[in-house]
Amino acid sequence: MAVANYMNKVGQAARASSRDLARADTRLKNAALERIAEAVLECKTAILAANKADMDRERESRLDSALLDRLEITEARFADMIDGVRQVAGLADPIGEIYELIYRPSGIQLGKMRVPLGVVGIIYESRPNVTLDAASLCLKSGNACILRGGKEAIESNQAISSAIKVGLKRSGMSESCVQVIETTDREVVGKMITMPQYVDVIVPRGGRGLIERISGEARVPVIKHLDGNCHVYIDSDCDLEMALSIALNAKTHRYGVCNAMETLLVADSVAKNALPKLAKLYAEAGVELRGCSATRKIISAKEAVEADWSTEYLGPILAIRIVEDVAEAIDHINTYGSGHTESIVTNDYSRARQFLREVDSSSVMVNASTRFADGFEYGLGAEIGISTDKFHARGPVGLEGLTSQKWIVLGDGQIRS
Amino acid sequence: MAVANYMNKVGQAARASSRDLARADTRLKNAALERIAEAVLECKTAILAANKADMDRERESRLDSALLDRLEITEARFADMIDGVRQVAGLADPIGEIYELIYRPSGIQLGKMRVPLGVVGIIYESRPNVTLDAASLCLKSGNACILRGGKEAIESNQAISSAIKVGLKRSGMSESCVQVIETTDREVVGKMITMPQYVDVIVPRGGRGLIERISGEARVPVIKHLDGNCHVYIDSDCDLEMALSIALNAKTHRYGVCNAMETLLVADSVAKNALPKLAKLYAEAGVELRGCSATRKIISAKEAVEADWSTEYLGPILAIRIVEDVAEAIDHINTYGSGHTESIVTNDYSRARQFLREVDSSSVMVNASTRFADGFEYGLGAEIGISTDKFHARGPVGLEGLTSQKWIVLGDGQIRS
Repeated sequence: MAVANYMNKVGQAARASSRDLARADTRLKNAALERIAEAVLECKTAILAANKADMDRERESRLDSALLDRLEITEARFADMIDGVRQVAGLADPIGEIYELIYRPSGIQLGKMRVPLGVVGIIYESRPNVTLDAASLCLKSGNACILRGGKEAIESNQAISSAIKVGLKRSGMSESCVQVIETTDREVVGKMITMPQYVDVIVPRGGRGLIERISGEARVPVIKHLDGNCHVYIDSDCDLEMALSIALNAKTHRYGVCNAMETLLVADSVAKNALPKLAKLYAEAGVELRGCSATRKIISAKEAVEADWSTEYLGPILAIRIVEDVAEAIDHINTYGSGHTESIVTNDYSRARQFLREVDSSSVMVNASTRFADGFEYGLGAEIGISTDKFHARGPVGLEGLTSQKWIVLGDGQIRS
Repeated sequence: MAVANYMNKVGQAARASSRDLARADTRLKNAALERIAEAVLECKTAILAANKADMDRERESRLDSALLDRLEITEARFADMIDGVRQVAGLADPIGEIYELIYRPSGIQLGKMRVPLGVVGIIYESRPNVTLDAASLCLKSGNACILRGGKEAIESNQAISSAIKVGLKRSGMSESCVQVIETTDREVVGKMITMPQYVDVIVPRGGRGLIERISGEARVPVIKHLDGNCHVYIDSDCDLEMALSIALNAKTHRYGVCNAMETLLVADSVAKNALPKLAKLYAEAGVELRGCSATRKIISAKEAVEADWSTEYLGPILAIRIVEDVAEAIDHINTYGSGHTESIVTNDYSRARQFLREVDSSSVMVNASTRFADGFEYGLGAEIGISTDKFHARGPVGLEGLTSQKWIVLGDGQIRS
């Protein structure tokens, strides 16, 4: 009951603030972002101390180095956090934009106006920088937000939250525009995803378990991000140097990211030429190869089993399959892929068009590395997440994904006859 | 179990067809629509006979005249159905449209391509014309659809379904692009809204009970339409003749529709002048008035109670409230309205802007009747529904509301550094 009461209070405050935020003009929102950046900078010592407390506690209790890495606010990450807020301030304000304004035969002028969604709930794990990123994006897009970080980052998040409140207050905005949940009670999540009267959308950021649990239980729309099982297809008609460069970059630029390539598809006619060169590059990078039987006739690789085609390795492992042509590549991708990001390397005009049209993924590329699929590269500023859904928002979600629209009608007294 | 097996088969077939439909070009889809229109026309006798069977059965068992009216396919309605299909064929194909294609600093060219959602499930009640409207809109937007009509229209819907199948077959498309559920078993709905592997979105069309049940139980996104509690606000600075004309039209043009005005708000300073004239017009039209205490000092009206402000009468009743100014009108609307459609009658530039910006409804109008809020008037062709949600689609939902997008990236070998 205590959690339910607390969450109801949080929800009511968020809903009330969302009304003010929807009306806030660009100048006010940008000023608030600048005040927040200043306040976070002023609170640097306190934030880093809180982060050290989180790190010390987690290091003792778990010794999970990947988690500790995500949790740590280094000097460089602190500077990036501040930069992130200012970048969001610099983005165009999407709210109030009127577009597609046309005259209809009745004489009315019809258009659309972009509006905030209302209240955004974000549930995330160890990275404390998400607190500031998410707060900035929600504020700029006119949404109130409720942020529920991981218990491992509770001290860091509360310290950042205090600084955000100072910034909001200095700019004359309500402190409940951004509310960071103060308790680590697990019941919070269950309540947060089932109060549609107060929360308009939930963005879960974290492991598959978290996201599947939330999607299954939510009574509120969810912008969710599941696997990133990305593909590069090397077409028969391509620039081989370009193909090698993209295939290497997509796999090895960073391993633990959702837009890294996990399966490489190669057209049969170029396999004999391309694969040995690729195998050498991957060997130098320390990438383990798992190939289909045709691949293993050309290069040395472990045998790929059915499960490999569906696996997001998030590490230095790559599955390789030889396919007949672009149609078979598209079929493989639409069957085994997770709908995240795929790229074709080709010089053939028609096949490029076919790949773009027929691959059913949130990002489809020609002659570019899958690693480009993120909010910064797409110019969205910090991203609130990458949606693998098709409903409402798809792919990297920035400010626009946190908005809705309304129809507007301008008339001179028109009535229906 | 029988229903579950049947629905799984339907779902699998829909998913398979949706892949072909996503690839279908505009010419093929338009040809299929024309073949469907022809086949429905050829089957006119059978469809009208089936409809007569539905009418006869319902007339005997229920004698609900509103239901019988919705159920009946008159000659005029039959002609409208055919016209509707051809109008959809005439609409621009949204699928494959590439927009916002820009160069990013990295040299990649980034844009968006419009794509179908996949499989659309529509659950509706007595109007059999929805079967053809919905099938046309889904087909044109590249989506497979599963249509579950009311049991009162089962014969009519099956007859229309047979004709659609003939049309699909003649155009060389799979018959499972459009599947009309053949059983009236109520379990169908429960199954249909909980198979996200086969259905991408559910559109319920019907009474509040149906929609609330579906929203509560669905495991699939829902485009839902709840109440239409619409408002007209007559501002202090307005053209009185225009105000009278709009207020009369918005209430009396049709009573049983969601975009009819249910509450009239009048600025205090014009109430003494406007209300007696309005009262006379409404009396001639047979509209019952329910007023706030200030209203009842000027004209004769029943006393409006708190519940009146939230009620969608769908009939010749109107609530009237006198407000101080535009801010109070906006506040009333955002408090009691259902977020459907609201209109201000004003000559004041700033108040028009304020109303457009601050009213949180799917359609917000200046100097026009609320009755314009529909798919035909907005140029969307037949509408699949009017969404009172903010997520994904809002207001009248036509072809575009049945689409998603993907990001596309065109490069010359760019990699991330």
